[in-house]
Formats: sequence, C-alpha cells, structure tokens
Amino acid sequence: MSRWAAGVEYVGTGFRGWQTHTTLRCVQSTLEAALSKVADHPVAITAAGRTDAGVHGLQQVVHFDSQARRSEYAWLLGANTNLPEDLSLRWVQPVREDFHARFSARARHYRYVIHNHRARAALLRHRTAWWPQRLDAGAMHEGAQALLGEQDFSAFRDSECQSPTAMRFMRHVNVFRRGDFVVMDVCANAFLHHMVRNIAGTLAEVGLGKRPPAWVAEVLAGRDRTRAGMTGPAEGLYFVGPEYPAEFALPERPEPYFPA
Amino acid sequence: MSRWAAGVEYVGTGFRGWQTHTTLRCVQSTLEAALSKVADHPVAITAAGRTDAGVHGLQQVVHFDSQARRSEYAWLLGANTNLPEDLSLRWVQPVREDFHARFSARARHYRYVIHNHRARAALLRHRTAWWPQRLDAGAMHEGAQALLGEQDFSAFRDSECQSPTAMRFMRHVNVFRRGDFVVMDVCANAFLHHMVRNIAGTLAEVGLGKRPPAWVAEVLAGRDRTRAGMTGPAEGLYFVGPEYPAEFALPERPEPYFPA
Repeated sequence: MSRWAAGVEYVGTGFRGWQTHTTLRCVQSTLEAALSKVADHPVAITAAGRTDAGVHGLQQVVHFDSQARRSEYAWLLGANTNLPEDLSLRWVQPVREDFHARFSARARHYRYVIHNHRARAALLRHRTAWWPQRLDAGAMHEGAQALLGEQDFSAFRDSECQSPTAMRFMRHVNVFRRGDFVVMDVCANAFLHHMVRNIAGTLAEVGLGKRPPAWVAEVLAGRDRTRAGMTGPAEGLYFVGPEYPAEFALPERPEPYFPA
Repeated sequence: MSRWAAGVEYVGTGFRGWQTHTTLRCVQSTLEAALSKVADHPVAITAAGRTDAGVHGLQQVVHFDSQARRSEYAWLLGANTNLPEDLSLRWVQPVREDFHARFSARARHYRYVIHNHRARAALLRHRTAWWPQRLDAGAMHEGAQALLGEQDFSAFRDSECQSPTAMRFMRHVNVFRRGDFVVMDVCANAFLHHMVRNIAGTLAEVGLGKRPPAWVAEVLAGRDRTRAGMTGPAEGLYFVGPEYPAEFALPERPEPYFPA
C-alpha cells in the first residue's frame, strides 16, 4: 500500500462544491471515480479543505492510498483521461505515510478576485466576481488589517458552519488593485464556512465608501454575522492551495491565472 | 442619425463565429438583436473583422447608426442587460460619420495562447490551447520572422478563404514564453481565413523540434497550404483588437487576460 498526493484544479461553476451527501455533482466523488478506474479498486481521497459550490480550486491537494503499482505519470494521465474537462490533476507524487492532506496543512491560501469595471467582461464570466462601482482597494486593505492574528471570526461565519470553534489565526489579508482588478489574498491556519466570501463582502462596503476602514474591527469584535457585509459571489473565489512543512517536498503553490 | 462605435468582448466557445448565414448562434446577430431592443428599431452592425467559431473577442470593434437618442451609458447598460453572459459591450462612444469599423482599421492584432504543460489545466479550458509537449518559444520566434513585411500568405490560407488576394503586410510576429504559457502576438494590416491558427500550428512544428526555424520561410515561399502545419485549435485565439488612426479617438486595446 502506498500513499500518493495530488494537486487538483477545478472550475467550481459546475460542481455543488467539494463534497455533497446528495446525488448532485461534486468534486470529491468525481475525482474518486476517476482514480478508482486507474487503480482498478475503490479509491477514497482526503482533501486539504472543502470548497463551496462555485468556488474554484487552483491547487487543492488530496491524498489517497492504493496497492496498485502505477507510475506518477500513469496516475496523472489516467486520471485526466477519465475526468471531465472542468476538473484536472496537475501533478501526482508519492508521499510518506504520515502525510495527511488535511492535518499536515499548516495554512490555507485563498484569492478573491473582483473585476471592478462598469461594464461586465464576457471572458471573465464564472472566473471573477464583478463589481461595477469603483472600489478603493487602499481603504479595503487598511480595514482588513484588523483581522490579523488569533481572532474569533464569528462575525464572518455562516450559520451552517459546523466547526466547534470560531478561533482562527489570520496570517495576512492583502488587498490591492491591478488595473481593473481588485484582489484580496488571504492566508490563515484554516477558514470557517463562507469566511473568505464574508470578509470580501464586508471589505467591499469599505471599498465603496459606505463604511470607514475602522468598521471592520467593530464587526469583528461584535461577533455578530448580521452586522457584517454580504457574502461575496462564489465565482470570484480561488482556493490557491494549502501549505505543508517543507519535509514533505510537495510542489509550490501555482501562480493564479488572474489578474494578468 | 448618429454613428456609434462599440468595443465587444465575447467567449468564442458558444458561437458559430462572428457571422453565419444559417440559424446557428453567432455573435453578430445576437448583438444586433440586443442593440435593436435598446434602439427600438432594427440596428445593423459592421465589425472590424470576422472571427471563426470558437475564437474569442477581446476587443472586437463595431459601428452602427441609429436615430435613437441614447447616452453612451444607456447603450452600454441596455445592451449588456439584453446580451447573454458570454457576450458583452465594454464601451460605447459616438464617432464621426466617416468612421468605418472595417475600412478605417489600419491593422489587426491577434494573440494565440498555448498552455504548455504535460497536465491539462481545468481553469484554462476553452481559454487557451493546450500543448503537452515542451515547445521552444525561441525557435518559434526565430522562424516566425520570415513572415514579416508584404508577403503572399497562400501557404497559411484556408481553402474556403474568399479574399481576392493572399497578399498581406505582417508588422510583427512575436513568440515568447511566460511560465507555462507560450504566446504568439501577431499584427498585420489584415488576415486571411485561418491564417493566425495556421501560422500557430506551423510554428508549433518548429517549437517541437520537428522542423528547423528556416522551414517557415520555405513553407511561405511554397505557397502551398498542404506543406504547412496543422490549424491550431480555435480556443487559443483572441482577437485583441483593430488599430485605427488616432483622429478617431477610440479607446486603446485592452491588456489580454492570459497569461498572468
């Protein structure tokens, strides 16, 4: 029995998220079906983190165990041949048996991309969120700095979130403008349900000038979801990837495709 | 009666090209239907250049005449509200009556984008061509320089091309690598049917090392389509936009979305 890790890329649009207990299309079961074909036995995968319906995976990482003797390239090519076009493996490599895609991850990186232009862009459909009103990325960045460190993120947590605690350690929240794009790069040890999208929606209120940057600290301190902003659309969110200790020698996180 | 110009962006995937004489979905008729609704009378549009099925428009430019009194913003918002999600206007502005989207254009810019990686990338599906074997962009660029200037491009012309002449003036063909992408930027006064894609397919033979860079000059001189390479897939091709004399004061060509 060997343990393998794989980098998984997907367009979130056509999936009901990473995992579902219904018969709806989800990333996990689609990927397990493809890997099971290559292995010739049922394969169960474990992911670094679950993503919601519509959220994209730039480098989701999974691990799985198999007694099948396959080269890295055979796994890669075999899986991609059996996967639909909106889901692909970018790499596969053998890992130590103590590697665990979820529990070995020290942090998760997400990127939220807003196309900030008065006219929507057809080529960015399902690839970025679209906000027609001008956003002040500097004010958003300023407000976001209140979220750093060990905090109770109840204010940004969906009511359906099942985590036993709302405490998370936020390493960075960087908001910047590049041309017509406003980008928010966030990194924390882990995230609550809808946390990144709720932060994006809250910062957008600041970006629009409806609230001052200091309001973000107030929302956080209030621990009340109803006082925060809207949940940003899923299509702007990318799971850029998890971060593992260097000893596991996994590939680096990829460069996001947006913005140019 | 006033003349208007508009910048049009579209995902080529769902269209049978710019124009079709059948009932199949095409960009021109879809756009005319939306503008006619905004104008409250039938609107006919003229484009800078026609694109094939599957080819994307980053900044196609059209002009149309209307007696309807509408602001720029009313045209923009009204059209985008009536257009499907894979087609959008990015700007609309009034132009002089002697402006003609096709005949005023001095040159056309296209970009061909190849994702050059052994594993396909789900998020790039329908946005770039995918070539798994490593391409030598330097050799492709070297070979491409034979195409500069006033030339007979019969070798790169589709058999269905209806142009009375195969002579075109090529201003530049720049091939370069950026990370896992190989990009070909081309500019000529005008292009023949399938010309950019046939050049891309021919240069790929050089990039793969199957042919030396000097072979491109031979293919061009032979004026025989059957001696050139394959037609590159449509999904890698973007019409970046036409170029007009500065006196018309139209918006600049946009930055392509790929590669980052």
